[in-house]
Amino acid sequence: MFTKSVEVLDTTLRDGAQTANISFTLNDKIRIALLLDELGINYIEGGWPGSNPKDEEFFKEIKKYSLIKAKVAAFGSTRRKEFPAKEDPSLNAIVKSDVEVAVLFGKSWTLHVTDVLKIGLKENLDLVYDSISYLKSHGLKVIFDAEHFYQGYKEDKDYALSVLKTAEDAGADVLVLADTNGGSLPHEVYTITADVVKNVKTKVGLHMHNDSGCAVANTLMGVLAGARHVQGTINGIGERTGNADLIQIIPNLALKMGFEVLRGKESLKRLKEVSRIVYEIAGLHPNPYQPYVGDFAFTHKAGVHADAVMKVSRAYEHIDPSLVGNTRRFVISEVSGSSNLITYLENVGIRVDKKDPKLRSALAKIKELENRGYSFDLAPASAILIALKELGLYQPLIKVDYWKVINERELAIAVVKVNGQLEVAEGVGPVHAVDIAMRKALQKVYPEIGKVKLTDYRVILPGEIKNTESVVRVTIEFTDNEKTWRTEGVSTSVIEASVMALIEGLDYYLQLNNKKLKVPEVNN
Amino acid sequence: MFTKSVEVLDTTLRDGAQTANISFTLNDKIRIALLLDELGINYIEGGWPGSNPKDEEFFKEIKKYSLIKAKVAAFGSTRRKEFPAKEDPSLNAIVKSDVEVAVLFGKSWTLHVTDVLKIGLKENLDLVYDSISYLKSHGLKVIFDAEHFYQGYKEDKDYALSVLKTAEDAGADVLVLADTNGGSLPHEVYTITADVVKNVKTKVGLHMHNDSGCAVANTLMGVLAGARHVQGTINGIGERTGNADLIQIIPNLALKMGFEVLRGKESLKRLKEVSRIVYEIAGLHPNPYQPYVGDFAFTHKAGVHADAVMKVSRAYEHIDPSLVGNTRRFVISEVSGSSNLITYLENVGIRVDKKDPKLRSALAKIKELENRGYSFDLAPASAILIALKELGLYQPLIKVDYWKVINERELAIAVVKVNGQLEVAEGVGPVHAVDIAMRKALQKVYPEIGKVKLTDYRVILPGEIKNTESVVRVTIEFTDNEKTWRTEGVSTSVIEASVMALIEGLDYYLQLNNKKLKVPEVNN
Repeated sequence: MFTKSVEVLDTTLRDGAQTANISFTLNDKIRIALLLDELGINYIEGGWPGSNPKDEEFFKEIKKYSLIKAKVAAFGSTRRKEFPAKEDPSLNAIVKSDVEVAVLFGKSWTLHVTDVLKIGLKENLDLVYDSISYLKSHGLKVIFDAEHFYQGYKEDKDYALSVLKTAEDAGADVLVLADTNGGSLPHEVYTITADVVKNVKTKVGLHMHNDSGCAVANTLMGVLAGARHVQGTINGIGERTGNADLIQIIPNLALKMGFEVLRGKESLKRLKEVSRIVYEIAGLHPNPYQPYVGDFAFTHKAGVHADAVMKVSRAYEHIDPSLVGNTRRFVISEVSGSSNLITYLENVGIRVDKKDPKLRSALAKIKELENRGYSFDLAPASAILIALKELGLYQPLIKVDYWKVINERELAIAVVKVNGQLEVAEGVGPVHAVDIAMRKALQKVYPEIGKVKLTDYRVILPGEIKNTESVVRVTIEFTDNEKTWRTEGVSTSVIEASVMALIEGLDYYLQLNNKKLKVPEVNN
Repeated sequence: MFTKSVEVLDTTLRDGAQTANISFTLNDKIRIALLLDELGINYIEGGWPGSNPKDEEFFKEIKKYSLIKAKVAAFGSTRRKEFPAKEDPSLNAIVKSDVEVAVLFGKSWTLHVTDVLKIGLKENLDLVYDSISYLKSHGLKVIFDAEHFYQGYKEDKDYALSVLKTAEDAGADVLVLADTNGGSLPHEVYTITADVVKNVKTKVGLHMHNDSGCAVANTLMGVLAGARHVQGTINGIGERTGNADLIQIIPNLALKMGFEVLRGKESLKRLKEVSRIVYEIAGLHPNPYQPYVGDFAFTHKAGVHADAVMKVSRAYEHIDPSLVGNTRRFVISEVSGSSNLITYLENVGIRVDKKDPKLRSALAKIKELENRGYSFDLAPASAILIALKELGLYQPLIKVDYWKVINERELAIAVVKVNGQLEVAEGVGPVHAVDIAMRKALQKVYPEIGKVKLTDYRVILPGEIKNTESVVRVTIEFTDNEKTWRTEGVSTSVIEASVMALIEGLDYYLQLNNKKLKVPEVNN
């Protein structure tokens, strides 16, 4: 019978990049790919090399990294009617991208063949056959995505199946049934997928969109019907209403349906973190109501539920939240947090007693700042600085007496007085100018600061929508080429928030490198 | 056989009010109730009169309005073990609320009976029987919500069914199967609901939560299995990951499964509006990716899609967006072709010939700017300004002679000279200060600019990660309370980029309101 293992293809970098309001840089794409590989994703669809130069660059760049397990896949369409396969630009772009796996989409709905491609039904079968054969002849594994398969099947079942059989004959390794306009419902997906599984010998896959609000359910129903390959994106980002959300599909398959997915438990535990980082890179606010990983997914409002959860957690929680890296929260009693902070501190070599009252006062301070717009899970370094201060481990190394910035078009001038040292610098922008002036003042005493570079800079309005006087949150990422850390600043002024995050980033580096940092002995 | 009509109970005001971060005022609740009635909702669950005074007030207040069709329902639990029904505070609170319909929840999962209520299994049946009989004796229609029914059925099928039969014997009008912890999957819901429908004579209802990401699908599968009453909330708000979203369930039932729901087409057309107003009252950002009603639900980005949608709309859209009060949109980006830009221009009343060479030069300019860090799908207004300039339709209305900003901690001072007018302003941040100074200078000539507000502000590094001298991209969203638009600025300086986006946002508004804007005649 069916194996109990399902392989996962992530298309965050291709279909996800089609989301309105999302645009990934090359560097964003590399960061996401490495994260997906760590998560244990089987195939990473990196882009459509025939369609834009940014995607071609991705395939070049990703080769510089050695991935743990994931295979990188390039996306493309079946050949155009004007070209034989070997001369088709799209197919050759896939070949040139030098990947092991191709995801090739082709038409399986007669309406698309006759009214969009405007070719004959038989000719479309030739396109499918030729394209797959050509890629196979170049040694590629070919995943064939049958576009609009469910609509195609409903309007002309025999033709839709003949497209799959043609792909199978041409050597396709996986036959993916795509619900491209997202209009199908779970019971239809089950019935149609089961019929396909009966009619082909090749592994069947699923590619669902969320236009009916059923992308996750449709994927699960397809797997129940015998599919063993699923496609989706992190957080369900994608064109229109998005793709099927792998962050929800993976735990449903693993925890509720008993399938082997990715690296099992180890992967599940990282789901919340991966979800969070992808939101951040995409410039989206995390969805607090997201199943499994949302901040409110295991949040209980005080009263009947919270009380019962304390008594019997399984009475109100469908799974143990720690299985997916999430935590139980209560809206009124602020119990959560201390274990997160302890873990962060342990990561930088500081062990703290869970019952230390100083830890509680650090937590109280952190919660107070979170109410004012900070989000320390995005910038743990800022939270660690607070904890170091409360724990008495902090040594004041940077004292900012004064800063001032003057801006005019591309020019910015910063005047800073740090540790009694007055410095001035010109920059191409205010953060640049402050950064230079600050380093000038600090490098004489702390030459190691020369190693620190800024690697990311983001600003969002964390609170409710207001006007230009709203509080903004600046997150800056730093690296010394060995470690990476992130700090935050919150202010009504984007410049002040940037300066705050900048100072904290340099301060954090100095604090952790400070030989005098006393690491306390703790008996836990 | 089964009737083809499904009744809808909305619990936005009760279960929706349990959402973390949401709190409705009495006035909010009245506004929502009237809106639900206009939509054609059958039952409006107004609150839990036994649990808080705000809910009691609602039932008093709503009586002052004459609803078109909706029946108001009060929520409560089966009697406590300590009281006979006629002395139970919760049941009497329902009676006192003077409604026609009661929604009564009771236990159907043995774990809850023995470990949470800590009573015997038989005693729980008495609670159910007595409570329903008491409410029926007061002439109320009783909808019985069997809490955690699916878990209960899986662990002790006979007991779970006996609870339903007890409710039926006591005279319950609807037996609702609640997936209270949201952990069930669609195939389980189908099988279990079908078995219930076979075993009872009373109408069966569904109450789903979204913890597995399947609340909508679970509701549809339950209806397929024979349920004819569905419960949910507008936009799926609710505790943890939320309730089943009626905004998605209603069109799925009506447009895809052929059921009579609410007032049919008339109700469907109002779904987007109702969704939007409830978000606003709840203080939440509308979800642009929401199926059916999201701003992006029918937004096409990829060039290949946009092109095909123009040819055959049903090729890429699962339904006609106007059926649910939504509209088709296109986004402009490096992957899309000229058809997206044309549609954008048409939306602002400008028709352009597809072959106009000026359109091509506008597109070339757009692509060039995208290579320098712009992303016009995030900010179509900036792209439209480029097109207006290239098409010769742009009139220079804002001339910035000069701007300068001085920052120091929370204080920012902006000096601007616009259209020859020198102005100075203090702000809580640089963007705020520039915004004020700019409006001061412009409002004398263009008083309408007073209506424009900023609603979002974001900054990211669009290019490769470098250092603080990297180019940043600022995106600002504006509204005049009727329309919303987004502009972008790209610069090495976050201040300059902000000022650019700010000026473009105001300029865009003035350009589109400019009476002199010549709309050219085109023969397509």
